[in-house]
Amino acid sequence: MKENKVIRLKDDIKLSNPILLVGLPGVGHVGKLVVEHLIEELDAEKIIEIYSPHFPPQVLVNEDSTVKLVNNEIFACKANDIDILILTGDHQSASTEGHYELGDLYLDLAEELGVSRIYTLGGFPTGQLTHTDEVIGAANNPVLVEEMGQYGIEFKENEPGGGIVGASGLLLGLSQFRKLDAMCLMGFTSGYLVDPKSAQFLLGVLSKILDIEIDVTPLEERAKEMEKIAAQLAEMEQQQQGQQQFLPDTVSNDEDLRYIG
Amino acid sequence: MKENKVIRLKDDIKLSNPILLVGLPGVGHVGKLVVEHLIEELDAEKIIEIYSPHFPPQVLVNEDSTVKLVNNEIFACKANDIDILILTGDHQSASTEGHYELGDLYLDLAEELGVSRIYTLGGFPTGQLTHTDEVIGAANNPVLVEEMGQYGIEFKENEPGGGIVGASGLLLGLSQFRKLDAMCLMGFTSGYLVDPKSAQFLLGVLSKILDIEIDVTPLEERAKEMEKIAAQLAEMEQQQQGQQQFLPDTVSNDEDLRYIG
Amino acid sequence: MKENKVIRLKDDIKLSNPILLVGLPGVGHVGKLVVEHLIEELDAEKIIEIYSPHFPPQVLVNEDSTVKLVNNEIFACKANDIDILILTGDHQSASTEGHYELGDLYLDLAEELGVSRIYTLGGFPTGQLTHTDEVIGAANNPVLVEEMGQYGIEFKENEPGGGIVGASGLLLGLSQFRKLDAMCLMGFTSGYLVDPKSAQFLLGVLSKILDIEIDVTPLEERAKEMEKIAAQLAEMEQQQQGQQQFLPDTVSNDEDLRYIG
Amino acid sequence: MKENKVIRLKDDIKLSNPILLVGLPGVGHVGKLVVEHLIEELDAEKIIEIYSPHFPPQVLVNEDSTVKLVNNEIFACKANDIDILILTGDHQSASTEGHYELGDLYLDLAEELGVSRIYTLGGFPTGQLTHTDEVIGAANNPVLVEEMGQYGIEFKENEPGGGIVGASGLLLGLSQFRKLDAMCLMGFTSGYLVDPKSAQFLLGVLSKILDIEIDVTPLEERAKEMEKIAAQLAEMEQQQQGQQQFLPDTVSNDEDLRYIG
Repeated sequence: MKENKVIRLKDDIKLSNPILLVGLPGVGHVGKLVVEHLIEELDAEKIIEIYSPHFPPQVLVNEDSTVKLVNNEIFACKANDIDILILTGDHQSASTEGHYELGDLYLDLAEELGVSRIYTLGGFPTGQLTHTDEVIGAANNPVLVEEMGQYGIEFKENEPGGGIVGASGLLLGLSQFRKLDAMCLMGFTSGYLVDPKSAQFLLGVLSKILDIEIDVTPLEERAKEMEKIAAQLAEMEQQQQGQQQFLPDTVSNDEDLRYIG
Repeated sequence: MKENKVIRLKDDIKLSNPILLVGLPGVGHVGKLVVEHLIEELDAEKIIEIYSPHFPPQVLVNEDSTVKLVNNEIFACKANDIDILILTGDHQSASTEGHYELGDLYLDLAEELGVSRIYTLGGFPTGQLTHTDEVIGAANNPVLVEEMGQYGIEFKENEPGGGIVGASGLLLGLSQFRKLDAMCLMGFTSGYLVDPKSAQFLLGVLSKILDIEIDVTPLEERAKEMEKIAAQLAEMEQQQQGQQQFLPDTVSNDEDLRYIG
Repeated sequence: MKENKVIRLKDDIKLSNPILLVGLPGVGHVGKLVVEHLIEELDAEKIIEIYSPHFPPQVLVNEDSTVKLVNNEIFACKANDIDILILTGDHQSASTEGHYELGDLYLDLAEELGVSRIYTLGGFPTGQLTHTDEVIGAANNPVLVEEMGQYGIEFKENEPGGGIVGASGLLLGLSQFRKLDAMCLMGFTSGYLVDPKSAQFLLGVLSKILDIEIDVTPLEERAKEMEKIAAQLAEMEQQQQGQQQFLPDTVSNDEDLRYIG
Repeated sequence: MKENKVIRLKDDIKLSNPILLVGLPGVGHVGKLVVEHLIEELDAEKIIEIYSPHFPPQVLVNEDSTVKLVNNEIFACKANDIDILILTGDHQSASTEGHYELGDLYLDLAEELGVSRIYTLGGFPTGQLTHTDEVIGAANNPVLVEEMGQYGIEFKENEPGGGIVGASGLLLGLSQFRKLDAMCLMGFTSGYLVDPKSAQFLLGVLSKILDIEIDVTPLEERAKEMEKIAAQLAEMEQQQQGQQQFLPDTVSNDEDLRYIG
């Protein structure tokens, strides 16, 4: 497989000015958790599969021990009369160049499907294990920024300071060349753990924007479990810092925490 | 060499619905040990050599001090009236994209040779130095999973949890696009050492599936040697863990063990 | 986006033998600081934007929360009757091959715009936190070296010993194939910190060469702030070295300092 | 520069069955030291320059402060009526695929110039700081191995065990496809230091093979200097090992030694 492979699962897709939600794996898996939840709650239908030599050479194993070549997928659903497309997947590109190539492929498909606006969803790493109910946003044109002000999204000058890396940011940048409205919403998250609590809050903001109602109970339950783990980790971290006053600093502590995420 | 190079060593290969066994270097070198043993026991003949710019820039040195450019190779043999093809080699691809490109090349050759089913063979890393006689499987369609149930292969929901990385998994995924049956069999292994004991057990399972008899004595002997080394390592590890109660944790211990594999 | 994308913002650019100043991110960000200052002081106008799949997959966030896909840009201005072009940007290429491809693209644009001479600006890492007012130079032909001798630029045999890595050096090398005069000016800098003080001195040398007057007050102010930080770091470093006499050496100290730059 | 660039400096090169010596940077820089010495002693003339996007994006600075884009070069000379070509350079390929591409480019040039035999020269890392006067060899056909037996070259079964990595090995492997005789000669060296002593011994062996006389005095002098440094390092290493009995193991010690090479 030298080229990306796009498999269209349906011949007759009729959508009216759909919006595209993008939730790929990333910081705290916040974006992916949100769209996975939406796919289930809104009973979304898979319409496109995307395979690429830029994804890792890997298959995942299903419940029935069959395998699935890692890919990205587009789902379609309807909520409150709005046509919604959802892009999610197992991985982002493994290479710099692949990111740009796949980014344009996603936008080609978005244009083909008549997408009117893109929301990319992600996490904003705070480095703190304590949770904050905050969503920070950025957009690819100032009109969108203004329009979004009413939904409790924070817009801060030049924040995130390190920019937005990966598909969530790149899709905003690349869609500027196509005059396509796109904005990125990032839930605050530690950056160390999969974070359903952040996903839950981000989903609340998104629901307000789209004016739809979504049952968040399943995310809430996962969030409670993760909160316990985070509390344990915070305690461990505190203890370790105590110890480190008497021991030379090593690489391992930070690394260990990071591997959990 | 900008492109893969396929050298066909025989003009007239007549095979009847051959199966393809794939044993490339990987976890514990389990898959490679199995097929190397089969090549010797079944007196298999090399029919194809594959060279690729995606392999490391390296030659190996033969017994007579001549060199061999690293490659992958396909052998043919017959056992109990079944035509068997065997793909093995010195390396897997050094790059992500190369994995996909070589994967498709192998399947092109499999189709050209009329392959009816593929078995990829590998190791499943347990992280434990003590051995378990277990083989875990995955397949690219549910009928195969069911058929294989009778041979003592474990099929566990979503296991391996991290999926299957490299050629063993990728060939299952890519052959789905070609309606080609493929399954992966992985022997349990520590993940730290070349593991002929795991290979021996995996070979036993494979022999039952193919209904052929294979003398495993040579593997058994290598297994006994490795068992001694594993026992020594386990002892060393235990001693080190004792010491580490009084010393800060460093990166080096784990790494050292891993370099042996 | 599989190819570099060049966006020309103006149709009618008339320049008379312009010189090209190149200040991309690099050691101490010295080169970038100099050209950013010039762009502001000389009120330079952006005429070209360059996007590339060899840049990281990233957008930066503007003051108004809109995003900017990372890129390189060319500005035009006039000072003391000299036409000046300035190449600057957010990143250098993320890959080896991309460096060569972008290097040739920059030179294609330079030739298209009639550039008569190129000055690439960068930092020379001394590894010392104390500042020295020195600029070291290299050129792609001996006539240029001689001509530059009068401006207080140091030319040392085979210095920098490790050569010049990245766009600053590559543009000198690649322009040799086009008979285009190019020289590199590097301000001495620690290599650990963004260094406006080094930029200020380099700008002074450049002003003499171009015979233009530039107000350096803004750089001076930033330099004073950085001097305080450097002093604090030097003190911390001294304290750490004291402690290390009693503790085994670890990787972390050096690394920490490096992450600041 | 998207493609390799070959610059031929002479139009009329008439050679009679030349041999090609290859000495690129590698373990202990042994191969490069040997051919640099030969280029000087035999007053070889540069006939070809090779530039490539697979080399690092770097220029080196000459004595007169002009720059040189890193490249590989081919020189021609005559010794005892034998036409000798020498391939040397600043770097090997920075990427796996580049190694294969450049390897074929070198062999294309070798065939164009009528090369009858290739000797690649390198170092064999022993991991010991004490020197041994030994050269190990490998060839791309058994006749060559036998022919070379008389020159004091060691040929050991399957040695080096890890194969030969980089251009020295790859050129042997790739020339098998062209029925071109090629052999690799590797001087024993620590692997930590640039090693003129090893180069001196390797040059002696090569002189016997080619039946030419070469003054090795300059190499001898550099060798003496390096011997002193090696002795100091060996002493330091011994002292460090003493200390480490009382201190936890860290990554840094080994690494430090390696950075010297």
